[in-house]
Amino acid sequence: MIAMQYKDMLNGKSVIRELSEYATARGKEIGYENVFDYSLGNPSVPAPETFKKAMIKLLTEADSLEVHGYSPSLGIIPVKEKIAASLNRRFGMDYSQKHIFMTSGAAGAIAHAVRTVTVEGDEVLTFAPFFPEYNPYINLSGARLKVVPADTESFQVNFDRFREMLTDKVMAVLINTPNNPSGVVYKRETLEKLADIMRQKGQEYGHEIYLISDEPYREILFEGVEEVYVSKMYENTISCYSYSKSLSVPGERIGYIAVNPACKDAETIVNMCGQISRGIGHNCPSSIIQLAAAEAVDETSDLSVYEKNMNILYEELVKLGFTCVKPGGTFYIFPKALEEDAKVFCEKAKKYDLILVPGDTFGCPGYFRMAYCIDTEKVERSIPALRRFVEAEYGSGKEG
Amino acid sequence: MIAMQYKDMLNGKSVIRELSEYATARGKEIGYENVFDYSLGNPSVPAPETFKKAMIKLLTEADSLEVHGYSPSLGIIPVKEKIAASLNRRFGMDYSQKHIFMTSGAAGAIAHAVRTVTVEGDEVLTFAPFFPEYNPYINLSGARLKVVPADTESFQVNFDRFREMLTDKVMAVLINTPNNPSGVVYKRETLEKLADIMRQKGQEYGHEIYLISDEPYREILFEGVEEVYVSKMYENTISCYSYSKSLSVPGERIGYIAVNPACKDAETIVNMCGQISRGIGHNCPSSIIQLAAAEAVDETSDLSVYEKNMNILYEELVKLGFTCVKPGGTFYIFPKALEEDAKVFCEKAKKYDLILVPGDTFGCPGYFRMAYCIDTEKVERSIPALRRFVEAEYGSGKEG
Repeated sequence: MIAMQYKDMLNGKSVIRELSEYATARGKEIGYENVFDYSLGNPSVPAPETFKKAMIKLLTEADSLEVHGYSPSLGIIPVKEKIAASLNRRFGMDYSQKHIFMTSGAAGAIAHAVRTVTVEGDEVLTFAPFFPEYNPYINLSGARLKVVPADTESFQVNFDRFREMLTDKVMAVLINTPNNPSGVVYKRETLEKLADIMRQKGQEYGHEIYLISDEPYREILFEGVEEVYVSKMYENTISCYSYSKSLSVPGERIGYIAVNPACKDAETIVNMCGQISRGIGHNCPSSIIQLAAAEAVDETSDLSVYEKNMNILYEELVKLGFTCVKPGGTFYIFPKALEEDAKVFCEKAKKYDLILVPGDTFGCPGYFRMAYCIDTEKVERSIPALRRFVEAEYGSGKEG
Repeated sequence: MIAMQYKDMLNGKSVIRELSEYATARGKEIGYENVFDYSLGNPSVPAPETFKKAMIKLLTEADSLEVHGYSPSLGIIPVKEKIAASLNRRFGMDYSQKHIFMTSGAAGAIAHAVRTVTVEGDEVLTFAPFFPEYNPYINLSGARLKVVPADTESFQVNFDRFREMLTDKVMAVLINTPNNPSGVVYKRETLEKLADIMRQKGQEYGHEIYLISDEPYREILFEGVEEVYVSKMYENTISCYSYSKSLSVPGERIGYIAVNPACKDAETIVNMCGQISRGIGHNCPSSIIQLAAAEAVDETSDLSVYEKNMNILYEELVKLGFTCVKPGGTFYIFPKALEEDAKVFCEKAKKYDLILVPGDTFGCPGYFRMAYCIDTEKVERSIPALRRFVEAEYGSGKEG
């Protein structure tokens, strides 16, 4: 008798994955270069040379048993020391290696963080639009994910609804800035206000409310946007980081949790992560990947292509009459669809070989996501298709 | 408010880890070469050249985005195809890639397998002596691990107790052959009898009883021992494999689940594993490690040192009067202690810088484990210490 909880999940197909599979199939018909595939958030630039060289050096010069040997269950200590030092230098924090837990990317980080600070039935709040995988990360832990509706004016925080929903049952708030799918970066005042409300409500309820900060796009920040390190704004913060995007290594499943040293039970939370990992038999990220990432803690791939692509798309979308908040980072943009049902809108776009993801998937109907982590040349070639689509289906767009 | 379930686990320290830490500390005093550290089951031979060369080739010749890109959630398909083909060739099975799920070693494999075939409150049986990490793998899933007492005569299966304990509540039986800690390999007739009882009871209860077969030591098999592929003996078998020992890469966290194609719901079980992985945010093992392991599916490190060490130790232990079943594989041996309380026995051994692990940890009091995955030279140097220990503390051993 197999476990129905997981079996039932097999029916819930990922819309993003289905669109990506459609794009691949369509590519086989007309050549993939002719499919303007904006479906998947996969890095489009190679890993930095430093990472590659570190891997080769470890393989050729270091002792096999050390490179490929068991990692301690919380991560390799010198790796964690390098990460702590880098965060301290860049963000004025005071982490030690004891505040770091190595994870399988931000996904693993969030799933562990939630399990440390919630029990069965507790609530975790997040804000629409949000990454849909938050559902399994939270809901399979026994806690319940509740989604605060979007502030579609700015894609900052809908504070009125947040205040209402931040009841005594909420043990953690999960944010993602720079945001997938909106591309928006939370302003300093947004984070200040968020922190104030959480502190106040925490005192009122007599328990901590932890802030789980999902930060895989931290380094993909565009010109003129202020970089605010979330954990600086709120002491009970568990930062969840991934090297997937900054080093273009999503398949290597490497990231970490960094618990603010001022957070209540900071070191205990890190140690508890090790126990949670035991339960799923996961233990740790690959040793050699941990060691190589440690050599590249202050580096990134060449991320400039994403801003370039964003500027081309944003300018054209506005010209075509789309309502759209300009992204401050990531490789996503999240315009309003030209008709009420974004699913219908995205379905029509397929006729022009434009692969767009309806905002419903991100808890924000009526909008759509474009993941512009593709070659600039392709973005440029997609513009005529976008124009044809808008003109043929919606007149000449809103302004027309 | 942090999750007490995991916080409480922090008090339960691992005896093996404590002994290993003691050995390291003692090594700092007298030189680690003088500590006869038989505590940890870590491979002592390097990874094979094929694995290393495959890694370097991927890094230098392949496209960064392909090597380091996202793996499909069930594993990279060509990798799974190579694994299936290798198992089919070696063991006469008929796996396709659809029966394979890539995991973080055997640990991840067991933890996933258990979650597919049990729900809260179900029981999983295993046999003493057993690897103590089975406790978190099973108990944190919501199922309950129950331990069938050892048959200390042979360390095969205590069938009388097994029959009694195989009630209607048992959804899975977890076995480990070659066995950690006994080093014993289950005989063909043991597996046949086990399968017969499971089939019969399954029919009686009207539900499948799955066999979860933990096989990280599959390739460490000594002369004259028959290799029996467990899944050949029982259709509802989920094989859990790790490359940690065969390729000496425990830190790379790479292994797989192979579900017998004749198993009920075989492909569904594989797909469910992908959903379970989503919940913990783990997704998949590292892409480059999957790709490199696929190049070495039919290889192993030079494992001959383990048999050599076993022969030296076994001969000496018998000479000294220990009761001991001769290991058929692994890098463990599990003799009977020379006094009732193996903890006291192992504590006394420390005086002679012999680091032994009491069998209590493995659900089998009165015995002790030696992990002889160390240099043969050190095994040889440990013999005089072993003799001194036995003579000084127990006369000249049992025979004396």
